[in-house]
Amino acid sequence: MIIDRLIQRITELHNPTVVGLDPRLDMVPAFIRDAAFAEHGNTPAGAAEAFYRFNVGLIDAIADIVPAVKPQVSMYEQYGAAGMDAFIRTIAYAKSKGMVVIGDIKRGDIASTAEAYSDGHLGRVDINGEKAEVFGEDFITVNPYMGSDSVEPYLKNCKDFGKGIFVLVKTSNKGSGDLQDLVIGANGQTIYETVGQYVSDWGKDFIGVSGFSSIGAVVGATYPAQAEKLRAQMPHTFFLVPGYGAQGGKAEDLAVCFNADGIGAIVNNSRGIIAAYKAASYKEKFNEAGYADAARCAALDMQADLRRCIPC
Amino acid sequence: MIIDRLIQRITELHNPTVVGLDPRLDMVPAFIRDAAFAEHGNTPAGAAEAFYRFNVGLIDAIADIVPAVKPQVSMYEQYGAAGMDAFIRTIAYAKSKGMVVIGDIKRGDIASTAEAYSDGHLGRVDINGEKAEVFGEDFITVNPYMGSDSVEPYLKNCKDFGKGIFVLVKTSNKGSGDLQDLVIGANGQTIYETVGQYVSDWGKDFIGVSGFSSIGAVVGATYPAQAEKLRAQMPHTFFLVPGYGAQGGKAEDLAVCFNADGIGAIVNNSRGIIAAYKAASYKEKFNEAGYADAARCAALDMQADLRRCIPC
Repeated sequence: MIIDRLIQRITELHNPTVVGLDPRLDMVPAFIRDAAFAEHGNTPAGAAEAFYRFNVGLIDAIADIVPAVKPQVSMYEQYGAAGMDAFIRTIAYAKSKGMVVIGDIKRGDIASTAEAYSDGHLGRVDINGEKAEVFGEDFITVNPYMGSDSVEPYLKNCKDFGKGIFVLVKTSNKGSGDLQDLVIGANGQTIYETVGQYVSDWGKDFIGVSGFSSIGAVVGATYPAQAEKLRAQMPHTFFLVPGYGAQGGKAEDLAVCFNADGIGAIVNNSRGIIAAYKAASYKEKFNEAGYADAARCAALDMQADLRRCIPC
Repeated sequence: MIIDRLIQRITELHNPTVVGLDPRLDMVPAFIRDAAFAEHGNTPAGAAEAFYRFNVGLIDAIADIVPAVKPQVSMYEQYGAAGMDAFIRTIAYAKSKGMVVIGDIKRGDIASTAEAYSDGHLGRVDINGEKAEVFGEDFITVNPYMGSDSVEPYLKNCKDFGKGIFVLVKTSNKGSGDLQDLVIGANGQTIYETVGQYVSDWGKDFIGVSGFSSIGAVVGATYPAQAEKLRAQMPHTFFLVPGYGAQGGKAEDLAVCFNADGIGAIVNNSRGIIAAYKAASYKEKFNEAGYADAARCAALDMQADLRRCIPC
């Protein structure tokens, strides 16, 4: 099970961190941007190439201390075909360095449409009768609003190709409660608890030797009370935890996502690591040329911060 | 307002139909497939080129009788960068023929991530200080599970660039009730009615001379009772109605999505039109070479079917 591989790598590195590769042009050092635009002109391909080179530097700097990366597809997709190419190359590069890759794509659709997402990202697509892998993520994130039949095509490819998904349950943003916190009349459960129950059920056939399922849940660091309820409700469900750092989630808050043995979740940090060289706490020590060293330093600081509260 | 343009075109053509451009390789006639793979080899680029040429033939055949097309991004995205390029070229070609384009992307994310989707699909992206349009759809579909702050970045670009969105409210699939039909304790409303209320509120500043808002709702043809409630609840919200044809929705069922004057919704049909030449009812009259003529014939038949029940 892919979840076992993720947990093994977390345990080996004593680091339940995933680095969000969500670049924006204003985060990319000028020397990378200028070279990319010089080669490609002021085109989407120039922006995409700048992102890819930025990511390569980051991955090289963290692959031995961080178990996983989570590229956010929207940042690449906004640059069209060239952006998607950079997203795919980033996935391949991270995998070549031994990292687990979580594609943060939050797709949700039905029937043949969901199958197409699932085949492209987790499975194989048909090319004139041949089968080909296109994106190749280990895990992707999935949106459950359309219901069970929108998730089934992912489960099928998780089984056939040894992949995993993280389903949005309780997200980290301010407006997440608009729908997710509504209480259902019949059973007094919230929507997020109801989705949590679905995720547990979907995951039953995917539980590995770690005791966790390759069908996981996205649970925001910014809502510790809700996360604590979900941790109790979903003992076999691994959590992908956004919201640490820039969004306000603290190690103390998100410790409830972990079991007593320090296993149970992986915590995302995006700009706090990839743009560390621009942050007040690092810019004295690192300049643009040292952006990757700054990211490594920030990743080690995050690891230490998590280990204050989590016995990992 | 873009909604006024869509409604004007629907009225001129007496046809509230949108054709879903959701190609699969097994729908594309062999003469198109073979030529594309001969030029590109058995590669994602071959598949993508086959889709694009298939779409060009379809658009040429229907642009004077159908107001809009709805390309479904997953079918293209599964082929990676080349697929996204074919998606973007399809949008541009349909627009060049005067059609309104609804990008069926069902994106949903937060903050800077949602902004990236919004800038790429509806607005402009930053390329080394210059602003560029990348996808260029007139409308996109949006998933509301993450709440109000996940929708706001789209509203901003709708305002700045004269675009529109359709938010998933009650979808056409069998499992749509898993979450959408749950009844909230406090007010006895279902989730889909609650989302409907949000969509009405988000749309207040986008109401055009037609009386409808550029912030619309996706309401499935397969749930007429729910659609009738939503039509009454959301008088200024235009509906994008999937589920006609292959999914089982009938003209009689979806008539409730329209007002007495025949305005209020646009009905999607994908494979019933684009793969009509393979259907029992058309394959006697059309061969593969006539796939576009078959699509035109099927579009005219659908128009007639809708007009039996809707005074459009």
